[in-house]
Amino acid sequence: MASRDDIVFGAWDVYPQNAYQAAMYAQVLDEKDIAPVRQELEQIVPMTAAFDRNYVKRIDGSNVKAPLSSTNTIPTRWQMVEMLRDDIRRFRREHGCSRIVVLWAASTEIYVPVDEQVHYRLEDLEAAMQADDRRRVAPSMCYAYAALREGCPFIMGAPNTTVDIPAMWQLAAACGVPISGKDFKTGQTLVKSGFAPIISTRCLALDGWFSTNILGNRDGLVLDEPENFHTKEVSKLSTLETILDGSRQPELYGDYYHKVRINYYPPRNDNKESWDNIDLRGWLDYPMQVKINFLCRDSILAAPVALDLCLLSDLAARAGCSGTQCWLSFFLKSPMHDYTRGEQPVNHLYQQYTMLKNKLRELGGYAADEAMD
Amino acid sequence: MASRDDIVFGAWDVYPQNAYQAAMYAQVLDEKDIAPVRQELEQIVPMTAAFDRNYVKRIDGSNVKAPLSSTNTIPTRWQMVEMLRDDIRRFRREHGCSRIVVLWAASTEIYVPVDEQVHYRLEDLEAAMQADDRRRVAPSMCYAYAALREGCPFIMGAPNTTVDIPAMWQLAAACGVPISGKDFKTGQTLVKSGFAPIISTRCLALDGWFSTNILGNRDGLVLDEPENFHTKEVSKLSTLETILDGSRQPELYGDYYHKVRINYYPPRNDNKESWDNIDLRGWLDYPMQVKINFLCRDSILAAPVALDLCLLSDLAARAGCSGTQCWLSFFLKSPMHDYTRGEQPVNHLYQQYTMLKNKLRELGGYAADEAMD
Amino acid sequence: MASRDDIVFGAWDVYPQNAYQAAMYAQVLDEKDIAPVRQELEQIVPMTAAFDRNYVKRIDGSNVKAPLSSTNTIPTRWQMVEMLRDDIRRFRREHGCSRIVVLWAASTEIYVPVDEQVHYRLEDLEAAMQADDRRRVAPSMCYAYAALREGCPFIMGAPNTTVDIPAMWQLAAACGVPISGKDFKTGQTLVKSGFAPIISTRCLALDGWFSTNILGNRDGLVLDEPENFHTKEVSKLSTLETILDGSRQPELYGDYYHKVRINYYPPRNDNKESWDNIDLRGWLDYPMQVKINFLCRDSILAAPVALDLCLLSDLAARAGCSGTQCWLSFFLKSPMHDYTRGEQPVNHLYQQYTMLKNKLRELGGYAADEAMD
Amino acid sequence: MASRDDIVFGAWDVYPQNAYQAAMYAQVLDEKDIAPVRQELEQIVPMTAAFDRNYVKRIDGSNVKAPLSSTNTIPTRWQMVEMLRDDIRRFRREHGCSRIVVLWAASTEIYVPVDEQVHYRLEDLEAAMQADDRRRVAPSMCYAYAALREGCPFIMGAPNTTVDIPAMWQLAAACGVPISGKDFKTGQTLVKSGFAPIISTRCLALDGWFSTNILGNRDGLVLDEPENFHTKEVSKLSTLETILDGSRQPELYGDYYHKVRINYYPPRNDNKESWDNIDLRGWLDYPMQVKINFLCRDSILAAPVALDLCLLSDLAARAGCSGTQCWLSFFLKSPMHDYTRGEQPVNHLYQQYTMLKNKLRELGGYAADEAMD
Repeated sequence: MASRDDIVFGAWDVYPQNAYQAAMYAQVLDEKDIAPVRQELEQIVPMTAAFDRNYVKRIDGSNVKAPLSSTNTIPTRWQMVEMLRDDIRRFRREHGCSRIVVLWAASTEIYVPVDEQVHYRLEDLEAAMQADDRRRVAPSMCYAYAALREGCPFIMGAPNTTVDIPAMWQLAAACGVPISGKDFKTGQTLVKSGFAPIISTRCLALDGWFSTNILGNRDGLVLDEPENFHTKEVSKLSTLETILDGSRQPELYGDYYHKVRINYYPPRNDNKESWDNIDLRGWLDYPMQVKINFLCRDSILAAPVALDLCLLSDLAARAGCSGTQCWLSFFLKSPMHDYTRGEQPVNHLYQQYTMLKNKLRELGGYAADEAMD
Repeated sequence: MASRDDIVFGAWDVYPQNAYQAAMYAQVLDEKDIAPVRQELEQIVPMTAAFDRNYVKRIDGSNVKAPLSSTNTIPTRWQMVEMLRDDIRRFRREHGCSRIVVLWAASTEIYVPVDEQVHYRLEDLEAAMQADDRRRVAPSMCYAYAALREGCPFIMGAPNTTVDIPAMWQLAAACGVPISGKDFKTGQTLVKSGFAPIISTRCLALDGWFSTNILGNRDGLVLDEPENFHTKEVSKLSTLETILDGSRQPELYGDYYHKVRINYYPPRNDNKESWDNIDLRGWLDYPMQVKINFLCRDSILAAPVALDLCLLSDLAARAGCSGTQCWLSFFLKSPMHDYTRGEQPVNHLYQQYTMLKNKLRELGGYAADEAMD
Repeated sequence: MASRDDIVFGAWDVYPQNAYQAAMYAQVLDEKDIAPVRQELEQIVPMTAAFDRNYVKRIDGSNVKAPLSSTNTIPTRWQMVEMLRDDIRRFRREHGCSRIVVLWAASTEIYVPVDEQVHYRLEDLEAAMQADDRRRVAPSMCYAYAALREGCPFIMGAPNTTVDIPAMWQLAAACGVPISGKDFKTGQTLVKSGFAPIISTRCLALDGWFSTNILGNRDGLVLDEPENFHTKEVSKLSTLETILDGSRQPELYGDYYHKVRINYYPPRNDNKESWDNIDLRGWLDYPMQVKINFLCRDSILAAPVALDLCLLSDLAARAGCSGTQCWLSFFLKSPMHDYTRGEQPVNHLYQQYTMLKNKLRELGGYAADEAMD
Repeated sequence: MASRDDIVFGAWDVYPQNAYQAAMYAQVLDEKDIAPVRQELEQIVPMTAAFDRNYVKRIDGSNVKAPLSSTNTIPTRWQMVEMLRDDIRRFRREHGCSRIVVLWAASTEIYVPVDEQVHYRLEDLEAAMQADDRRRVAPSMCYAYAALREGCPFIMGAPNTTVDIPAMWQLAAACGVPISGKDFKTGQTLVKSGFAPIISTRCLALDGWFSTNILGNRDGLVLDEPENFHTKEVSKLSTLETILDGSRQPELYGDYYHKVRINYYPPRNDNKESWDNIDLRGWLDYPMQVKINFLCRDSILAAPVALDLCLLSDLAARAGCSGTQCWLSFFLKSPMHDYTRGEQPVNHLYQQYTMLKNKLRELGGYAADEAMD
């Protein structure tokens, strides 16, 4: 695995502030934890972002790529791709990088439903980019496309569909690079994917699961917009489906009500908090309830996930893996899977953990000594 | 596996009420759920109990075995054994049972520390019973001894040490019968053994875990006595040790504070409720908290566990298994293990579940297709 | 005060079921509590409702007043008024009632902003009714108008603006009858109006108050519609304003974030549950938090409030009171007050309670022995 | 009222550290909040304490008053009194104080039941002090006695009975100085005395109230000792009695179960946390529950209470008030009252607040414009 000392960090951002300024603004870390690395952070100055404000209405930033012609307010999708590829090449050259991993951890875009006309075949996707089809090609797809074409593993940390479409799977295979996504599994969903198995192993029935969140950072601001929240909602709701499976145990899980809410609540800033109410039924259908209140920290939980995904994606690339890396599901809220073939994602936290360990053993040349159920 | 229709239920109890009366008194089930089986329940009249009130001070009952001589207030321990063996033989004869399983689900006894002089060798234990050593031989040991001698698998559903001593392991081996214990894993500890793995898989550090309970049934009344609570406390505290292991990851789990409390609170009766506060530390030691509030039902969660343990113990006996059945740890708060050899119990709920499934496959003649980590 | 034995109950409802059927359907009370009064309940058969589905989209019912001409799908607003007045007169006659109180406890209507053109003067309101101005005259206004014209005290139990407009105040004064509203104070807001004073008496600062609710009854279904929820939101948000008053103590309450959510969650039916998170600041601005989780029962809390409001409104009428009865604020989430004169409502639960007791003393001929601060 | 700028702070402490060192050790305040006043704090060096370790077994300190003769390990009670009086006189002289208030905010002592032989008459108490009756004269009584004899108002911030005995009331009257106590009302009890009135105003029935606390500061350490906890328990349990009064409304409050627990839990340090479960019954006895989880800060809540009590006690003294100051109950968990005459304390937070405001108006020469119910 790459040594952490060998990593150089770069970033695109719609805001021009360097990493030190951004860290101070975010108030995630105390100043005393930032000050010692101030110099290193100040040197990380973001490149201009490929940004289309229709995708994130609550956010506006000046550090964005300018259109190439005056007829457009923003570059076309294809121009975005080319500019981003230039960025990657320049960064590689300037920093003498032997390998690059691209991780997307920006705001959730509005929901882009998978459209067979555009998202199923690589040539259709490329045509749509060239035709500047802004409705069906999200800016994040331009990042992913650019990364893959430049031979860089790509990780989708937000719930955007970006690489969760057959056209991107084809591109990843063609370029021989790993992809993974989507949506970092950090707070409430981490707990959910670890708690739901308690219910299923004991064959307790589920009547309903209500999940609400309060958070006040920029992520919360963006998700306050219904169109952006919908993307998140789809991701968060999917977690229970394969753990508490109504098709296999209809009398236990055939009819539960699962609801997820996110509320923008500025007093909390990045210290998001979740509250879950779970309605269970035990022997003879007697009702019971569980409440889980998680006072967590969004970025504190996400940072190690982001780092691990980069290191492991790089490792996978070096080991010759390409396409969707299911064994990284452990880190993800809505793991990618080939839905065109009816494949089911693995959401069960401990099954994900077993997959992760087995793959690492395999990559390390050891026999996998754990099997999935 | 035995069919549920082929089971005949019998019981010992310090109270003379039949099962219908006891069920009505307990108020666990609504009358509408008891009424349809009233007749069957009324036929289950308890045999007199082998009872020593010093072990459960908060409880008194009249349906107890009388002493054989007037010099004693209660039978000697050895007399208890003989009377209980008679009970088992009579029950077997009267109901034409081909096999019998004995499950202990009475009140928690006061703490009996393991004493090498008495509890390590079968002959010492028998000598202590014959010498009526009431301090070191709990009444529950008489039940276990009687069951094993009669060739009946024995299950310890309370946290009593009863069969969790080398002398009983020897007896179980000698008699060729399975034993299992101790303490049904139902409410708070079930959740704990499923939640702690969330923490460990993500390498979050633990500063403290505070667990409190309120319950108002007879179990709560007994545990309000410090000496009885201590037995429970030892059982409940052990759960985290092998999941969040300070010896293997001292920087994460080397110094957490784990406290468990049980409070007698009559308004709740059997509907016990637990509240857990968990103090975590994430990246850069930033603190986070989880609170879990479980509004559960003691007996509703315990009933299927008791039934499964009986059916599976019977299955094990038929398959020729004897001694401690580790694969039943899934159902138990403080699984038995050979501590004289430094063996570690498995408390991790999903590892327990894997062990259970693998053993069932093995007993069914299939290859175990899951491995433990 | 009227004796409870002298009361005859009648109802309007969009569903034709009698009170027994409605009670069984609602599952608020166990059958064993309904059965003893089955006969009395069966005799309460609802009159047809004055219903405009645009005001409550999630609900449909057949027991509604038919239009008088074929050009309309529903009666005009003025026809509604006349039909409802007929209903009241008939009911009075048939049951030999000496006095009648009309209480509105139906679903929350969509938000009708107060419009000075229509809602400020009685003659404008009557003109709008006659012009069948469906956008600005809610059906609930027809009930209130009919009740007042028939000399019946009117109580608004939902958050609808209905009688919370100057035109209705004039009518109530003209007819000499008491009115009160709006929105029964039962679960979360009851707690809020009693808890907020803890904060203010100790001069703790407030950063934010997040309130969420889950409920699964018909009320929850209606409030799942944004336009209906908005009416409720306005009512629920107003509670804190006069208790934690930013204009008087800007450094403590000048900038808090107050958010209220209601979530339709069918598993709970009428057993609604609220969860509040309160972000406080103490000495030197150190942050603290309170969480309140109320597992309550909507109708169980509302029933005595409804009955008390009827008895007390009747008492007020007999004592010659007319117009808005501020002393009944104790029972109401968003107490009526003359906002055209900048009057402030009293939301503080204990101030409301003092007002209630003082008025009762006054009505009883005793000196008020408590003063408001 | 005295200006805060005119106050000089002094202290007795069993630890020799100055106020700066103590504040740094306590970790209640961040260093950035302490640093600006470091110099002022360093000048507050504690005088030696009058300490008897039998009263606080979990604590040991070296900064204690030495015995005057070698036959004793500690000074006699009467010697303590004289040494403390010397301390007060010296402090007054050295700092040129025109007035002094003594506030006791040390650890809870073990429970000292009121004993009519010693605690009812001043001469008996003085005799017991002279006879060095260590079992019935707590060290805190020496502080109180010394303060009163020196003409200083005395405030008991812990739940010790100290001045809550007739002998002290006589002394306070004789010396013409105000006394008040006992036990600062800060976290859970503050909430309890504000929340219980919600229940009583709405005539909801109470089945049980379970209160637990976790805290990790020195206070928590001391209260982990059963004998010390008992003193606290008596204080905390008394709160509900006069708010939810079983003698006046036996059908609502005649039989509730009130339990209070405090758990030493070091991970939390001063950031104590309480969890309350309240079991209510509404209309037709349908059960409901409230849970309150207060993540508070012990000292942050106590500091302004301590300061207000000093300023107000001084004000009272200047206004010529002496003896028990009931109007300060607002700040106290277990307000003093003349139990020898069957007087009832006022625990209701809003009644206490009204009493406070009325007294201030009276002291200010205004008419009291609020009456108590």
